[in-house]
Amino acid sequence: MAASSDDHLIRTNDQHLPPILIHRTPSVSFPPLTNLLKNHFLLLDPHQSPLPLHTFYSRHAHSVRALVIVELAQVTEDTLRHLPSLELIVASSTGTDHVDLSACRRRGIAFTNAGSAYTDDVVDFAVALIFGVMRRVLAADSYVRSELWPTGGEYPLGSKIGGKRVGILGLGKIGFEVAKRLSAFGCRISYTSTKEKPSKPFPYFSNVFNLASESDILVVCCTLTTETHHIISKDVMKALGKKGVIINVGRGDLVDEQELVHLLSEGELGGAGLDVFENEPDVPKELYNLDNVVLSPHCAVSTQGSIDSMIQIVLANLKAFFSDKPLLSPVS
Amino acid sequence: MAASSDDHLIRTNDQHLPPILIHRTPSVSFPPLTNLLKNHFLLLDPHQSPLPLHTFYSRHAHSVRALVIVELAQVTEDTLRHLPSLELIVASSTGTDHVDLSACRRRGIAFTNAGSAYTDDVVDFAVALIFGVMRRVLAADSYVRSELWPTGGEYPLGSKIGGKRVGILGLGKIGFEVAKRLSAFGCRISYTSTKEKPSKPFPYFSNVFNLASESDILVVCCTLTTETHHIISKDVMKALGKKGVIINVGRGDLVDEQELVHLLSEGELGGAGLDVFENEPDVPKELYNLDNVVLSPHCAVSTQGSIDSMIQIVLANLKAFFSDKPLLSPVS
Repeated sequence: MAASSDDHLIRTNDQHLPPILIHRTPSVSFPPLTNLLKNHFLLLDPHQSPLPLHTFYSRHAHSVRALVIVELAQVTEDTLRHLPSLELIVASSTGTDHVDLSACRRRGIAFTNAGSAYTDDVVDFAVALIFGVMRRVLAADSYVRSELWPTGGEYPLGSKIGGKRVGILGLGKIGFEVAKRLSAFGCRISYTSTKEKPSKPFPYFSNVFNLASESDILVVCCTLTTETHHIISKDVMKALGKKGVIINVGRGDLVDEQELVHLLSEGELGGAGLDVFENEPDVPKELYNLDNVVLSPHCAVSTQGSIDSMIQIVLANLKAFFSDKPLLSPVS
Repeated sequence: MAASSDDHLIRTNDQHLPPILIHRTPSVSFPPLTNLLKNHFLLLDPHQSPLPLHTFYSRHAHSVRALVIVELAQVTEDTLRHLPSLELIVASSTGTDHVDLSACRRRGIAFTNAGSAYTDDVVDFAVALIFGVMRRVLAADSYVRSELWPTGGEYPLGSKIGGKRVGILGLGKIGFEVAKRLSAFGCRISYTSTKEKPSKPFPYFSNVFNLASESDILVVCCTLTTETHHIISKDVMKALGKKGVIINVGRGDLVDEQELVHLLSEGELGGAGLDVFENEPDVPKELYNLDNVVLSPHCAVSTQGSIDSMIQIVLANLKAFFSDKPLLSPVS
């Protein structure tokens, strides 16, 4: 990769390509994305520069019309203040809770997300977590690898999937597809969402407490907003009950994690499948000792197929922007 | 539980109930089944008797018209020789490879299995194993519990489920339901079976080698017979290829386990989800170190729901027999 400018920022020989700011935390880079983008744009990456951050910004930031967020790097009002020419933010995620969308709107900055690039994989992973917890796949594997089978040690039974009442919190694209898939296994689906969706063939509950009271499994896949922060409260989990299972493929902050850990540890909740946590990458250590939970490192989206789709949609949005065509996955 | 006879065999006070022989290996008992049966029958269990086996048989065997097999205890021609009055064998399993059915036929002994009691659970578990292997659920959980996440250690990507070519070996009840479920996830299904089933909407291959050549995932769920022993040979696994995944919820002997272990260890096969093994409960130790396999202790059928269904069908077959009504799940 040729670095031809004085400060190693310009990662292509072609100085006439439109500049794009790569916005990321210092420890996170994503070569599959940037390697493709550098064929089409002049990439400005402050964390690849020997310049102090303020010097970097004073030299480059005024020219930046578009910014790409790597993973879940925060975009605050303060971020925007350094970028007077910014017109577009392209996220590589579906969720937008790491971005101050109100500030973007006030500045008239357009915003795109990853569209449906990850939908299928998140749906599949939600199902994988449900099966992992309900059928005790990890406990089964560990029983075999610990050589307990030949000793005839008691093997705890899993739970039947068919007939289970599954409550979906957030019947967006992901929630609806999870619901459809689980219906094929004989699960009885109901949901709550910001509003009822009469076109969907599932019973609606007006609030999550009532939904939890009537569910065996609660699948959390709604958007994180100020209103949905800790929407899975202690009361909701108590309503789900001692045999109830929480599956979270949304965001960690949707669940009161401290209460979740407490209820799981006390046997007041049946199990959990958690792809997301409140303070990632930190995971409450109390969960490590529980065999009725399945933990994963926010990897529901992580397949090569999803990543390829995401990279393509990021590129397509940037190209559309620089050729004055409609954006492919704008978030309003 | 009252033991009223001289040799502790008769597990009820009612001597007028029809006697049933409980056929099991000494180390395996199944109280949920026998506790229900003893309300309806006089249970004869040689392994609960202080009598030597031959004394037990000479005292009781001549009167036995019905036998219940606990789990997978073998029934051979020799077993039958001790039971001159035997008219019915009731298995608590779906598979029948532990029973000499030819010998039963020659003697005119009727045989029933667990019918479809386990179907849904085996289907679900096959799906659970596929998701476990493809989406690397165990590796994800282990990554979190080993605290690798905060160090930013590389996390290996899982594989997308949608679009995968799934070959089903044995399109019986279980195979067909697995196929239907996976279709809902966007998998492309094909199958091989003893003969083509034109009513099923999936492409048919006339042999497993060709099926494997055109599959990413091979789901083994056919019956074990002399013909299907080691049907998943080295050649079939090589045809499946380096990224191919084997799922076995049938019987261990369907797969050449030694070759399977070798190919997995050498990276010549992508992964495996194994609920059954050739020499259960012994599992090849080489598998313990592989993170692309999911192992389980022949527990695909093990949910409370399945066990309840199985117990009910065992009871119903016995009741039907003793009241001269048609058997519910005869195997011809």
